Amino acid sequence: MDEKCGVVGVSLADRAAARPIYYALYALQHRGQESAGIVTHDGFQQHSHVEMGLVGDAFSEADIAELNGPNGIGHVRYPTSGSVDSSCAQPFSVSFKSGSLGLSHNGNLVNAGALRDELAGLGHAFTSDGDTEVIAHDLARNLLDGDLVSAVERTMGKIHGSYSLAVMHDDRVLGLRDPQGNRPLCLGEVEDGYVLASESAAIDALDGELIRDVEPGELVVLEPDGAGYESHRLVEPDHTARCFFEHVYFARPDSTIDGELVYEARRELGRKLWDESGIDTDVVMPVPDSGRAFASGYAEAANEGDGSVEFAEGLMKNRYVGRTFIMPTQDERERAVRLKLNPIKSTVENKTVTLIDDSIVRGTTSTQLVELLRDVGAAEVHLRIGSPAIVAPCYMGIDMASREELLAASRSTEEVRETIGADSLAYISQDAVADALATDRADLCMGCVTGEYPYDIAGEATDREVSRPAINGNRASADD
Amino acid sequence: MDEKCGVVGVSLADRAAARPIYYALYALQHRGQESAGIVTHDGFQQHSHVEMGLVGDAFSEADIAELNGPNGIGHVRYPTSGSVDSSCAQPFSVSFKSGSLGLSHNGNLVNAGALRDELAGLGHAFTSDGDTEVIAHDLARNLLDGDLVSAVERTMGKIHGSYSLAVMHDDRVLGLRDPQGNRPLCLGEVEDGYVLASESAAIDALDGELIRDVEPGELVVLEPDGAGYESHRLVEPDHTARCFFEHVYFARPDSTIDGELVYEARRELGRKLWDESGIDTDVVMPVPDSGRAFASGYAEAANEGDGSVEFAEGLMKNRYVGRTFIMPTQDERERAVRLKLNPIKSTVENKTVTLIDDSIVRGTTSTQLVELLRDVGAAEVHLRIGSPAIVAPCYMGIDMASREELLAASRSTEEVRETIGADSLAYISQDAVADALATDRADLCMGCVTGEYPYDIAGEATDREVSRPAINGNRASADD
Amino acid sequence: MDEKCGVVGVSLADRAAARPIYYALYALQHRGQESAGIVTHDGFQQHSHVEMGLVGDAFSEADIAELNGPNGIGHVRYPTSGSVDSSCAQPFSVSFKSGSLGLSHNGNLVNAGALRDELAGLGHAFTSDGDTEVIAHDLARNLLDGDLVSAVERTMGKIHGSYSLAVMHDDRVLGLRDPQGNRPLCLGEVEDGYVLASESAAIDALDGELIRDVEPGELVVLEPDGAGYESHRLVEPDHTARCFFEHVYFARPDSTIDGELVYEARRELGRKLWDESGIDTDVVMPVPDSGRAFASGYAEAANEGDGSVEFAEGLMKNRYVGRTFIMPTQDERERAVRLKLNPIKSTVENKTVTLIDDSIVRGTTSTQLVELLRDVGAAEVHLRIGSPAIVAPCYMGIDMASREELLAASRSTEEVRETIGADSLAYISQDAVADALATDRADLCMGCVTGEYPYDIAGEATDREVSRPAINGNRASADD
Amino acid sequence: MDEKCGVVGVSLADRAAARPIYYALYALQHRGQESAGIVTHDGFQQHSHVEMGLVGDAFSEADIAELNGPNGIGHVRYPTSGSVDSSCAQPFSVSFKSGSLGLSHNGNLVNAGALRDELAGLGHAFTSDGDTEVIAHDLARNLLDGDLVSAVERTMGKIHGSYSLAVMHDDRVLGLRDPQGNRPLCLGEVEDGYVLASESAAIDALDGELIRDVEPGELVVLEPDGAGYESHRLVEPDHTARCFFEHVYFARPDSTIDGELVYEARRELGRKLWDESGIDTDVVMPVPDSGRAFASGYAEAANEGDGSVEFAEGLMKNRYVGRTFIMPTQDERERAVRLKLNPIKSTVENKTVTLIDDSIVRGTTSTQLVELLRDVGAAEVHLRIGSPAIVAPCYMGIDMASREELLAASRSTEEVRETIGADSLAYISQDAVADALATDRADLCMGCVTGEYPYDIAGEATDREVSRPAINGNRASADD
Repeated sequence: MDEKCGVVGVSLADRAAARPIYYALYALQHRGQESAGIVTHDGFQQHSHVEMGLVGDAFSEADIAELNGPNGIGHVRYPTSGSVDSSCAQPFSVSFKSGSLGLSHNGNLVNAGALRDELAGLGHAFTSDGDTEVIAHDLARNLLDGDLVSAVERTMGKIHGSYSLAVMHDDRVLGLRDPQGNRPLCLGEVEDGYVLASESAAIDALDGELIRDVEPGELVVLEPDGAGYESHRLVEPDHTARCFFEHVYFARPDSTIDGELVYEARRELGRKLWDESGIDTDVVMPVPDSGRAFASGYAEAANEGDGSVEFAEGLMKNRYVGRTFIMPTQDERERAVRLKLNPIKSTVENKTVTLIDDSIVRGTTSTQLVELLRDVGAAEVHLRIGSPAIVAPCYMGIDMASREELLAASRSTEEVRETIGADSLAYISQDAVADALATDRADLCMGCVTGEYPYDIAGEATDREVSRPAINGNRASADD
Repeated sequence: MDEKCGVVGVSLADRAAARPIYYALYALQHRGQESAGIVTHDGFQQHSHVEMGLVGDAFSEADIAELNGPNGIGHVRYPTSGSVDSSCAQPFSVSFKSGSLGLSHNGNLVNAGALRDELAGLGHAFTSDGDTEVIAHDLARNLLDGDLVSAVERTMGKIHGSYSLAVMHDDRVLGLRDPQGNRPLCLGEVEDGYVLASESAAIDALDGELIRDVEPGELVVLEPDGAGYESHRLVEPDHTARCFFEHVYFARPDSTIDGELVYEARRELGRKLWDESGIDTDVVMPVPDSGRAFASGYAEAANEGDGSVEFAEGLMKNRYVGRTFIMPTQDERERAVRLKLNPIKSTVENKTVTLIDDSIVRGTTSTQLVELLRDVGAAEVHLRIGSPAIVAPCYMGIDMASREELLAASRSTEEVRETIGADSLAYISQDAVADALATDRADLCMGCVTGEYPYDIAGEATDREVSRPAINGNRASADD
Repeated sequence: MDEKCGVVGVSLADRAAARPIYYALYALQHRGQESAGIVTHDGFQQHSHVEMGLVGDAFSEADIAELNGPNGIGHVRYPTSGSVDSSCAQPFSVSFKSGSLGLSHNGNLVNAGALRDELAGLGHAFTSDGDTEVIAHDLARNLLDGDLVSAVERTMGKIHGSYSLAVMHDDRVLGLRDPQGNRPLCLGEVEDGYVLASESAAIDALDGELIRDVEPGELVVLEPDGAGYESHRLVEPDHTARCFFEHVYFARPDSTIDGELVYEARRELGRKLWDESGIDTDVVMPVPDSGRAFASGYAEAANEGDGSVEFAEGLMKNRYVGRTFIMPTQDERERAVRLKLNPIKSTVENKTVTLIDDSIVRGTTSTQLVELLRDVGAAEVHLRIGSPAIVAPCYMGIDMASREELLAASRSTEEVRETIGADSLAYISQDAVADALATDRADLCMGCVTGEYPYDIAGEATDREVSRPAINGNRASADD
Repeated sequence: MDEKCGVVGVSLADRAAARPIYYALYALQHRGQESAGIVTHDGFQQHSHVEMGLVGDAFSEADIAELNGPNGIGHVRYPTSGSVDSSCAQPFSVSFKSGSLGLSHNGNLVNAGALRDELAGLGHAFTSDGDTEVIAHDLARNLLDGDLVSAVERTMGKIHGSYSLAVMHDDRVLGLRDPQGNRPLCLGEVEDGYVLASESAAIDALDGELIRDVEPGELVVLEPDGAGYESHRLVEPDHTARCFFEHVYFARPDSTIDGELVYEARRELGRKLWDESGIDTDVVMPVPDSGRAFASGYAEAANEGDGSVEFAEGLMKNRYVGRTFIMPTQDERERAVRLKLNPIKSTVENKTVTLIDDSIVRGTTSTQLVELLRDVGAAEVHLRIGSPAIVAPCYMGIDMASREELLAASRSTEEVRETIGADSLAYISQDAVADALATDRADLCMGCVTGEYPYDIAGEATDREVSRPAINGNRASADD
């Protein structure tokens, strides 16, 4: 399962924004490893540095030093639309009649093509094929004859899909979250200014305090130089469509999203998993690191009740196996799983094992791990999964896989269990997810587990039972 | 004296254009070492590869292999406007309503700012601060409601300054030369198609034949896949403003520009230099490589007449001293001249010497060379220069120097001689240049040696004696 | 606390050794990140590839492909002696009268200087200043007039200190462990051959089975092409001097060293830590990842007894903060701890906390973490440490710190607690360590916690109560 | 035809040697582009920096700054023996009992294998397979029980072949030239010290004065810190074996070798070429840059006599075509010659042409150029060559080609002419070469044009008519 982007915006009183943004991008690195960029504004002009690669490789000390000014935005990218090359690396910068714009985007527009055509019809020419340039051009047009807030409002009326944006108009930093709040965005305070970020862990990294989440449909404008911020609730939707998968898999455990600590949500899901499908085995162990919080909650619930399971680390992760790893030949591939996750024999041998992970996408790793545990002597291997079966693609920004690649898309749970080779398999229920995320189920986007989406996607069902008028209105006009 | 850009466009019957463009860029490398790029079109889509650095460093075998399609354009760049960074590297590519555009530009617009403001007023947003993006946006607008030729004609009516462009509209390659023909552009034929290039040496490199120069104000359209070409003379000016400095310094000696072989022009100038200011010395020697053709003509004329001078290579050039050379400390700098140009003592010692170079800009090298020749025992050092005294900046695309840096801008020839330390100094006359370039002097741009320019430059004189109606008309409308 | 080297040797029946060695080095990457290298032998000649950097960066697919032959050795390096540059990267290769030698060394000789002088007196010249070249030259000399086993025996009689060596003499791979067994080395079997490695996790990575540890003073000779192996017990010491710190900190938890799984040893130490100095707090949390196994045992023991503590992950580690990270300015440094380890507020706020780590060296991180936990609202912070107080340097190959830098070297436990700012502090006892490692305490090297060493170190005490005759004998002759 | 190495040694009063050595290596870059290195000594220790690549790429400003000390040596390498990898890059450094040694070697030993075996028999182990390590080890042994001069003398008695060495023993820089003086080496003086270099152009680059050539068999010892130098004539051979090809092709034209300016020697050879085989054609043109001095002398002689030829530059060299150039596909290869050397049509068309080059090795370029000149309309193409026909390999350090690849090895002049396609072909005679180099022919090594060598080469003839007693004596002992 692949990842998506992270955005950050910073406005400070009297120090350069670049270094704090650099640290914030480190804190958001898990959201995108393809490219990293920072754009700052020093009151007179924009400075930009965008490069392919990890944050640590993309910036030298000298690069940071040249990014002058106390206001700025940053971005880490994992591509979900647009070509996988440098022309789509962000922040995306343009200059236009009324100044300069910089944009960091997390999400995926569903009507980018139509909007692009509309702008092209007015004479616009595009240097990339990404969503972000389309938003930038539309916003630039609207800023020609409107103030900042009304220009953003008009652009928001046109773009349809998921987006959390950190925008810089000259030296003013904005945060904008789509009306359904699909992607996270939060606002924090540091000693001498304000911070917008995809996740609160980035605010922590700056020793700041989380103020609150940016609301769905809200525009937050940071006054230049850390002077304060203004809120504009541009759209107030009846329902949101927050991505449940951020909580289950994507976000950092130490981030608080929409009021809930991700780590606690996962522990709670682990507890519910025990309640729904707990099985007494000698040992409960997580797939590191993604299954750890689930397994901890699961084991705790087990021991609180009548169960008596041992929570143990039974798989050791090799943190050095990364992108430059030379893939083994076909017949060595299976062996090479042990390079990444090596079982601790004493934890497993002759024992019944419950293995806990956050999700099953293609099922490859699960299959290999079950085989590996049997190889080192596990008596039984039971699989418990912290999210429901994933049966449909994501159109909102997470590059999961095509429907054909999704193991559960065309298989019953029993068929999946058989494919993977586990002794038993249970997913958590959709109800438990909605319950754990402490929200009206109608406020969650669960398209990938239901196949029904909160946006009109060609060829896909809409979750019609939910009224989403503000968005439908926007969407209608954008689709004309 | 710095250099400017080289452009190339290629349309072939049934082989990929990328490799021939790559070779052509090698042949034009002297026109720009900052970045290199190729854009091709395979009939369905554009492919682009643009990188900082020399041609040989910018492209790998794999890069070339991915640039599919028999039609394409290329560019080597030395920046004359726009920031010195990758955002200005070319060809510049955009997609717009009616397809894709790629542009390779050599020259300098004098009204880019005004045109940019005009487009920004219509809502355009720009990703770079270069001329080329402005041309691309304007052309894209004009192509919305016009055919190719009329769209180019309307853009030509707006842009003012020097430009030789290789343009790709989808799979159609165009060549466009400004109405005053300031920068060179020529058309050639290869076995299976056609080539547009800044200099004919690039056509030679493809084993092609030069057909002719593109005329000032002419648009040449290459049919896709090498099928043929069409000519459209969009503007027919009364007078041109061809850059004499291309012939004297910038172009390759083996290129033919506007009908004249550069090597022969330089030899002819050398002969005239003898006629105007020849002096009998023991030896005549060029500053390599720039003075060689002049010195050869000078010596020949001397020996044809009553003179008897020996032509000799007295300065050996170290071809390895390049960009990565670590500059010496101040007191070692003078010594380091000998690293680049080492005198051959036996050629110089106890002899009277005539040293011949193409031009004097800042005068630094000339001063050092005269001192060096005296150090190794030259009895006298006389300097003869193949261009008139350079007294004013170039606004048309050659990054010579600011007026303050030009040694002759505020000094008489005698004062320049004294600064340089030569026993005598003579420049060639402006008349001789006009005569050698076999043209009406009114058809040359000699702004840098007269201070009077063929375009309206703020704060500079125009060479009013020449009527340039077509351009004035364009200029007027563009300046509104 | 820095790390040291990892070695591997492989002999296979009919496939190239390079790829398995590459995987094994990945499994040993935690033992050294400065350089990586592989040397193979194809029966006719040696092939070598050694580069600075991580395994993943040091080898391309092409590099692996060129390393022909079914027999080879590998190395990852963290420097403990010798300059920190490429001249010390290993394996170290030499050719000599009787063929070629390749050496991968983990450890530190205490008499390298004397032996080097001795060889220099015989005319030897050295290209590096590392231990390994000295061993190579001595072994080459001894091979001139002796068979392999007796040559190794003679070299072993001369070199004094810690060493685990993978050696390749032509196509024969050897494993050699010093008579006191200070550094680990083990022997494993794969489908088609044999493997020697610093840790058993490297054998797991090749889907192999651990046979046993190489004994202190033992030479294991792998027959070429995976045909088998021979054992030669060259020295049988009365006592060993195994590094306890391998078990506590350095080795992977999933490795088995000298018969004991590291993960279990750490859990057992955690249990003992509760027994010795357990304290009831609301929550027990590890410093990730090093404290996790200790904390797990500690919490388990607490809950088995009368305690009732919650085991929780309260600090989230950012796995992206690595070597290229730009260090913050002084006043940002404290903030930046949160980049690496971010506390989960809900786990900590208003709670009494026991924080568990493996060791305290300089104390910097401990101090920062205690402050960080208080900042996010911890009511109390108690520190429990899985190793005794480190009061003296290591001379055997672990680059801990100088005595001045060791926090506990000149401070009582109460003074260390005060410096760190914890509410209480307790180390595990030396007896508990000896007990947990299931061994006679006299067989462990505990120099860094006792200040008494199993080797003569100038200016340091020897643990005289232990008789180590074989070694003393060797040492005496080497020190002459 | 490939090239060989350049060496330099510098001793200065009170400034760092590294920067001057860096400049000197730039001046010698034509002698080797594979690697570059500098070793200095600051009175206490050696500093070394050796890297693959060109001088400008191998050293950063920081690298230069770290090379402390006023004494040092440098090297540029083109491999003639030893593997083509970094283990053979020089200077080669070793430390031994009596200090440190650094060696820069130009040449090729013919008995390196035997000497290596001898040292290996004494226990030496080697890290490379190059000549230089063998010399270093032997010298280190001899320095154990002898003073510097006698140690060098003993080593000189053992090594047989061509060598010009810059050696650094601690802070003392030595220059050593083999008894037959096969490779050049000269001594110069700068303001504050002394310089040893392969060519005098390197001394010029430091603004120094050439004192004289180092004599065959001479050892020059530079006192540390520029204090002076001592000469020791260790061997005085009856005859030398100076490489005539240095003068004809390899050395810079502005260098003086063994008392003769290379440029003048080539001009003189050009004059003799006219005398021997001059032919009246419309134009005489050099293959740039190698044929230029020959062509200048040839044309001069022609015009002094009864001839009347025009000297012209008819081929323009593209200086950017270098190592990174992507080779064209087979059928494009011929076209690509024009990328490197483009004919000036006006100089050639309908004219009879004499093309002058320094030598013919494989004949590929000559064949292509003749065809190219005919393609652009040359009426006749006559080839005149400044060296005799090359019929045999070089064993002394120039990597020409194998005998099979040498066009003239198995062909008569008429057959070569036919292969190349010229209208006529003439080489200069061996007598003319000996005469032009102002020396007894017996003092030249002309092995590549006679097939008879001044050293015993297995399978090759020796030029027995010349008595070379000192060397034979040495050789005899070395071959035992």
